[in-house]
This record gives sequence, structure tokens and C-alpha cells, in this order.
Amino acid sequence: MAALRVGTRAVEGRFQGNGNGGGGGGVAPSVRLLAANRDGKPRGSHSAAPGKLRRRGGPMPLWRVAVFASVALNVATLALLLHHYATSPPPPPQHHSHDDAAPAARISSGSAGAARTTASSMAPSTGKPAVTPDSVINLDHGDPTMFEAFWRETGDAAELVIPGWQTMSYFSDVTNVCWFLEPELDRQVRRLHRTVGNAAVDGYHVLVGTGSTQLFMAALYALAPDAAVAGQPVSVVSTAPYYSSYPAVTDFLRSGLFRWAGDADTFAGDSYIELVCSPNNPDGAIREAVLASRTGNGRAVHDLAYYWPQYTPITKRADHDIMLFTVSKSTGHAGTRIGWALVKDTAIARKMTKFVELNTIGVSKDSQMRAAKGGGWRAAKVLAAVSEGYERRPEQPKGTVTPPPPPPRLFDFGRRKMVERWSMLRAAAAASGIFSLPDETSGYCNFTNQTAATNPAFAWLRCDREDVEDCASFLRGHKILTRSGAQFGADPRYVRVSMLDRDDAFLIFVNRLASLG
Amino acid sequence: MAALRVGTRAVEGRFQGNGNGGGGGGVAPSVRLLAANRDGKPRGSHSAAPGKLRRRGGPMPLWRVAVFASVALNVATLALLLHHYATSPPPPPQHHSHDDAAPAARISSGSAGAARTTASSMAPSTGKPAVTPDSVINLDHGDPTMFEAFWRETGDAAELVIPGWQTMSYFSDVTNVCWFLEPELDRQVRRLHRTVGNAAVDGYHVLVGTGSTQLFMAALYALAPDAAVAGQPVSVVSTAPYYSSYPAVTDFLRSGLFRWAGDADTFAGDSYIELVCSPNNPDGAIREAVLASRTGNGRAVHDLAYYWPQYTPITKRADHDIMLFTVSKSTGHAGTRIGWALVKDTAIARKMTKFVELNTIGVSKDSQMRAAKGGGWRAAKVLAAVSEGYERRPEQPKGTVTPPPPPPRLFDFGRRKMVERWSMLRAAAAASGIFSLPDETSGYCNFTNQTAATNPAFAWLRCDREDVEDCASFLRGHKILTRSGAQFGADPRYVRVSMLDRDDAFLIFVNRLASLG
Repeated sequence: MAALRVGTRAVEGRFQGNGNGGGGGGVAPSVRLLAANRDGKPRGSHSAAPGKLRRRGGPMPLWRVAVFASVALNVATLALLLHHYATSPPPPPQHHSHDDAAPAARISSGSAGAARTTASSMAPSTGKPAVTPDSVINLDHGDPTMFEAFWRETGDAAELVIPGWQTMSYFSDVTNVCWFLEPELDRQVRRLHRTVGNAAVDGYHVLVGTGSTQLFMAALYALAPDAAVAGQPVSVVSTAPYYSSYPAVTDFLRSGLFRWAGDADTFAGDSYIELVCSPNNPDGAIREAVLASRTGNGRAVHDLAYYWPQYTPITKRADHDIMLFTVSKSTGHAGTRIGWALVKDTAIARKMTKFVELNTIGVSKDSQMRAAKGGGWRAAKVLAAVSEGYERRPEQPKGTVTPPPPPPRLFDFGRRKMVERWSMLRAAAAASGIFSLPDETSGYCNFTNQTAATNPAFAWLRCDREDVEDCASFLRGHKILTRSGAQFGADPRYVRVSMLDRDDAFLIFVNRLASLG
Repeated sequence: MAALRVGTRAVEGRFQGNGNGGGGGGVAPSVRLLAANRDGKPRGSHSAAPGKLRRRGGPMPLWRVAVFASVALNVATLALLLHHYATSPPPPPQHHSHDDAAPAARISSGSAGAARTTASSMAPSTGKPAVTPDSVINLDHGDPTMFEAFWRETGDAAELVIPGWQTMSYFSDVTNVCWFLEPELDRQVRRLHRTVGNAAVDGYHVLVGTGSTQLFMAALYALAPDAAVAGQPVSVVSTAPYYSSYPAVTDFLRSGLFRWAGDADTFAGDSYIELVCSPNNPDGAIREAVLASRTGNGRAVHDLAYYWPQYTPITKRADHDIMLFTVSKSTGHAGTRIGWALVKDTAIARKMTKFVELNTIGVSKDSQMRAAKGGGWRAAKVLAAVSEGYERRPEQPKGTVTPPPPPPRLFDFGRRKMVERWSMLRAAAAASGIFSLPDETSGYCNFTNQTAATNPAFAWLRCDREDVEDCASFLRGHKILTRSGAQFGADPRYVRVSMLDRDDAFLIFVNRLASLG
């Protein structure tokens, strides 16, 4: 494993040609670590290193050694944990990376293709290359491959066998509003929410979508006519920084029903659809709706993709009108493309269902059955496996000597990982001296019955060097791919960094980040 | 098995209250069977019984006995075949039906629900009830459950095991334009087209979608800006009768990029996207594009969902710019929601990929791997299983006495079924004396190397009774659900009837149809 290279600056120079050539001297460490919030936004404070940065020329000061030791300790701890939880997958055959907006289009040579190499039978299905200390590290997307290690461990428990003749029909339950929802997925979604206590399910319809993105569009489609005024598209808003997909997905078809209208904080109208993402993508902040319609023409959609115990304390049972969730972030199965909505109103649920019918005539049954545990199926499936980890075990029958091993617990795994990673990232940012992160917040978690810190799935990282106006470009120059703050309606000095990649990629990232000061 | 009830008219009376109370006397049979084309449309002739219909009062004439015997013979043959190919699935717990547009919404009681009954382990996943001779028979959608019998037979060959930790990433191949396409699905799609010879694949990109509907929208999105004039949405047209989803899917989001403009035959502009469905849904006609743009602002999308040997002779290798296919109709796996596009132009392929990225961030990997055969996977999967049925077997090693059984052949199964069903349907329509069907056409099939008839996946059925102006309503009164010709831009005397349902439902349908004269 590569040692932390605090102080090395191999390729940094090329990004300073247009700015100042470099500073000099040292800065008091305490200032860097305890800097006040310098962000203009009222929400979400941000511990920032001071803006004026110097290059290190002299011997390494004591505080730097301490930080180095702290980070190294974390790395060593993680290395030990790796032996328990992860085996790095074998490298896929090709080695490419891609940029923000169009993952592959700008890389491919464009030649319509012959058959490609077949991945080894034990390699996970992903087009991303294995990483080395010199690799490009792609943390642009929230690809949740961190969870692979957990699911490898659970083994057969989440394995599913689908005979070829199963699930051929379009229909899953013609008596349900969402006629393409497998009844077993409905049941497992409700069970998991009851187990975790993060959302109310009684009195709600469960709708399934091809990821929660499809259900986001479905919600806009269902809510728009109610809120639309005089045939104009309804305004879709969200407080900045907002998830970069919201404007893109709202506007790409130039719908006459809805139109992106930017930051909810500066929105003046009274008819709108407000998107409330909590914990927020990109910055992890806990959010409430900020708008209240006087005329009753305002609606809210709550995107709760990250409201799970590995990321944040579960402080209350959410009971909003429309709540969106996805397996991508709860269990890590992004490639399965299953999201769900909890919807109170039957008419809205019907319109959302209609959207999915017109868009894709339902949702893959294979994926639904993978995300659920079927009654008569041969193997337990993903959501059921998670619930089982936290349900009360039956008492041991008399005469039994060794109790069966406890079922694997996803949220324990996830929280442990996230705590470790955030600790390492904070240490690395501090070591760099030029990056800052939002302050850690905490709360009492009703699920774990203890106080817990938030450990967001993304880091909202700010580059405090005065000569760096575009943090994403700066990091790209160091072969770290992130998403620019500009895409979230925020300052390009910020970037969003995925915290959910595989261990090896994450380790190289924090190593490299710490070295960029 | 219910006998054909030719001449029984149990519930018909209730639909004649507003029309004529009934006719009388008999009509010469030869006229009914050999009636000329009475359809206004120039394409696709239609054998029609004469318009004036009478009730049968006297003894059954000889021709009627002959038709009865012919239909009964078909039923008996099918019954025998059923013993080979099908076992009727156990009945799902509930018994409901639904209407055309919103499959479930109008039936459900709307109560957001408690968990539903779990399907038995061997029941296929479908919300549709098992049928009895008195059931409502729902042939509105093209639900391809006919193929279940084939895939039950193939057994383990198409079974797939997915460990829980597989396919977690969003990415499948970052070097490909379609970065979420599993390379193995790419390979199997090309292999199958090469085996069948129905479409060119060299020089084409393969794109995957959540069914071909999503790729249809993707094509509109990709082509629209090229064809759009002065910021106006481009006109989307198709020759009537056109697939009922085309206008619905084009317009439901009121896109500013494209807009439904109806029948291509009457379209006057020069900028357009023409949808060419061949064989055509609903009437099975072989189609070519009818428009030619003088300015070069016209584009065509070829929907070849039904261009497979079970439905039509493969007369040439199609090589259009954009061709759409789906497993729903080729192999019958509708619930898997996998479609693909073959696209020549790289820029168009990128835009289509972008659509799927924005719409659903890719396509279920579980479904893709089900639709393909993976290199190291434990079991053959669907497309590979089909190709294997038709590829040359290796020679028997010396000393082997009994050769291994030949692999199951999907297109043989499908064609045999379709020939039987069309034969039964034509006999039943003739027996009824009030229904007519498009004439049978045939051609030389390059895949089977013999002349074959077209056996479309839908029947485009015309009710010739003068007092029936809405055939779908008339049939609904007899508990047969179909889709009205009005939804296809055609006369409501026509209906579209799915020919792909399970054997038991199809048998009850033809029985009942024959009895409606």
C-alpha cells in the first residue's frame, strides 16, 4: 500500500502556470484546522483552511508530523479491515476513464464494435478499471461499489435463481395501482422501512421505478398539471447546492409541463414543485422544504435516497406526501436500477404509474425480484437480507450448544466504513492545508439508539487556494475526477466527491489529496 | 376443454338494445369466406364477411358443420400439443381485469396496501388471473406469455445465477458509447442477428434500453434537433394504422423537441421523423418508409420488434439507420424489459445513450445478463439459448452411440404455435360469419430456406356487422378485451387482438369468437 505522500507535489506545477507561481513560508496549523465558515450560504457551515496559502519550503513542523501520523494510523486500520471485508476484484481488461456529463461518449473511439472481451466469471460487472497508485481515480459519480465487500460476505444469502420461463409477462399485480410492482418487493420495502424507522409506510402506495430518477420524472409529470398556471410549465426549484441531475433531468426534453427554475431560496413565484433532498446531495445537509405556497399551488417532492443509518442518524420517521428511495444508495446495488416511491395520494400514485407505463412499460421484474425476497424462491434477496440482519432472532431451542452465526448487518458495515473514510478524508484535507469540508454534525439515532455523526455519501470539498478558481479542473490535473460545484448551482471552488467507491480507489484518493498542499 | 359453441349467443342480446334487434335467415357461406376487400386503406387487404348479417333460426347448414369440424380439429390438435409444450400455471390468488389505457388504476380499490399474497414458487410472475371458459379474456396488450411453455421446456439452459455482490456498479463498459451495455449482451445481440439474418450488425452500435419504448423516445430525442425547424418541435408521423403507443409516448410530456403529427400518408411537411413498424403493429403489414424529404430534414426510425421468423418470412437483411428490437417479442421475456437499438451513426448513438442516462441512468444489469449468456456464468441465458438452437452442432466423437438431444429451437416452437393459432382464428372468424381478417401473405424465408406465411403477433380483426360500430365495446360485452382501432388512427370497427397469450386463454377466445355470429 502506498504511503501517504504528504508534501510531494509531482504534477501540481502544471496547474499554476496561469496563476501565481507559488507562495512561501508556513501557516499556523491551528488556523487551518479550526478555520471558521467562509461560505456565503446560510445553511451548512464549512470548516475551511485560510485562503492565503504558502508553499512548504522548510523542515516539516511538528503539527504536520502529527497529522501525518494520524492519517497513517487510519490507513493502517483500514488496511487491516480490508483483510476482513474486501478482496480487490481482478482488473477489467481495459483502462479508461471519463468525464462528468457523458460518461463514455467522449472516450470511445466511436467505431461500432466487434464483440468485447468477456469479463472473468468472478469479476464484478463494471466497466471501471482496477486502480493503481498512479491511476486516474474517478469519484465523479456516486458509484456505490464500496458495498461489494459486504455482499460478497453474505454470499448465498442474497443469491437468486431465476428460471428462464419466469417473469415473462408485463404484469405483476393487476389489482395494484402500480400494476408492474412485484408484490414481494412491495412487502420487502415496507418491512425494511418498519425495521429502520426512517419513513412511514402505512397509508402509502409503494411504486417501483427504474432507479429513483425515473420516479423523480414521474413525480414532476404527476404534480405538474395541478401546479401549472395558465398553460405555462410549472417551476421546479431546489435550494442550492442542489443535485446536478435535477436541472438536467427536468429540462432535457423541454417539457411544456415543467421547467427548471433554479434555487428555491431566490424563487419568487407561488406555483412550484420544490425538490427537497435530505440528507442533501451534494453537501449532506439535513433539509426541510423552504417554500410555502399561499395559493396551495406549491408541491414538494422529498428525495430521501441517503436517509439511511450508514449516512446519518435516523431522527424521525419521515411522512411526506412523496418520498423517493433507491437501492443504489441503501444497499449499493446501483446496476440493478430499482428505486421506489412512497406516495400518499392515490390519484398522484396513478399518474406516476402512468408515467412509468408510457416511459418504459413497467420495470424489470428480474431486478425487482433481485431486490426482494420471494416466498418460494430458492434464496434470500437483497432487501430481505438487510431486514433479517436487524430483526429479533428466535430463541435458541434447548439442547442447542452453538448458536448460529448472527446474520450480516449492512448498516453496521456501512456506518463503520463511512466513519473510517470520513476520518481519513478529514485528516487528509487537514494535511493538505488547502482543502476544507463541511463541519461534522450529529444527532440521536432512533435506529441505533445512540448519538451518531452524519457521514455523507459525498464529500463537498472546497479548495481554498486563492489561485484555484475551478477545483474540479485542479483535481483533474492530479488525476482525481470529481463533479464541479458549478453543476450544483454553487461556487466552482467546490467539488462533490463520491465516498462510496472501492477501498483501493478511496485510499489512493486520500493519499493523493493529502499530498496536494 | 370447452367445446366450440358455434351458434350459442348467451350474452349477445344486451349489446343490441340500441341497434337493430336482430336479423333473420341465412347467408351463403361462400360469400362470407371469400368476400372482397372492403377496407378503405390501400395497404393490406382484408377478407370480410358481408355487411348484412342475420340471425340463425333454422337448422345448421352443411357449410357450418364443415367449419365446426375444421375448428374442432384444430382445437384437438392444439390440445395434443399442449401436452407436449405447456402446463397451465396455477391460478394467481385474485381475479380482476383491466381496460385499455391504465391497466390497473381503474380496478384497484385505491387503498394503499398491506402486503399482498405471495405467489407460489412455481407460478410465473404475472398479475393476470388463470382463465376459465367464463372468464374475461384479456387480449388487449401483447403480453407474450405464449412463450412460457417453450422456456419451461428449456429448463436449466436459460437459468441464471446472480450472486448478491455482482453488478453493483452503474457502469458496464466505459470504453463503449453505450457505457451501461453489458459487453456480453452486445455480443449475444450480434450473434443472434447473424444467426437469423434479419438485420445487419457490422458497422452498427448496439444500444440497450428498458424495453424498446425507451429507445423509441431516445431516438426522437436524438433526431429531433436535426430535423427541427425554427425552434418548433419536429413532426412525428407514421402510416395509419400505427402502433397506439406512438402518439401517446411522443406527446405525454408535451416536449418542445417533437410532437405527434398523425398519419404519414397525409403529412404535407418536409421536416419529420417517420416511424416505420414492420411487420406493422397492429395489422402485420410489411412496411417501407413512405416519405422522402426534399430538404434532407426527414428521418426514419425502423421498429422491427416483430421481424423474427416466428411471425414473418425473413426476406432480407435490414440495414436502416436506426432499428429497434426487443426481447419481449423475440423471445417473449416482456417482464425483463430489455430492448436494443442498432444505430449506424455514432453521434446519434451518443445522443440516444444520453437520453437513457438522463431518463434512468442506464438499464438493469440483472436484466441484461438474463437476456445474454455470460462467459463464466453458470447457465446459458436467453439470447444465447436461442442462437445455440440454430448453430451447427459439432460432429459426434467416434464411439458415441446416442447423439445428445438437439437444443430446443425457439423459432420452430413459435412458428408452429402461430400457424396453429392463425388457422384456428381464421376458422373461428369464418364460423362467426361476422368477423374478417387481413388476407394471409407469404414469402421466401432466407432463414428457414422455404416459403412461409406471415403469422402476425396481433390479429387486426374487423367486425362486419352493420349494427356494430365499436368492435372493442362489442367484444368487451362478450368478456373479450381488445384494443380499439380508434387508438391506432383507424376505424373503430377494427380491434387489435394479441395472439401471444397462453394456450388456455387463446382457446377460450377462439371458442367464444366463433360463437358470436
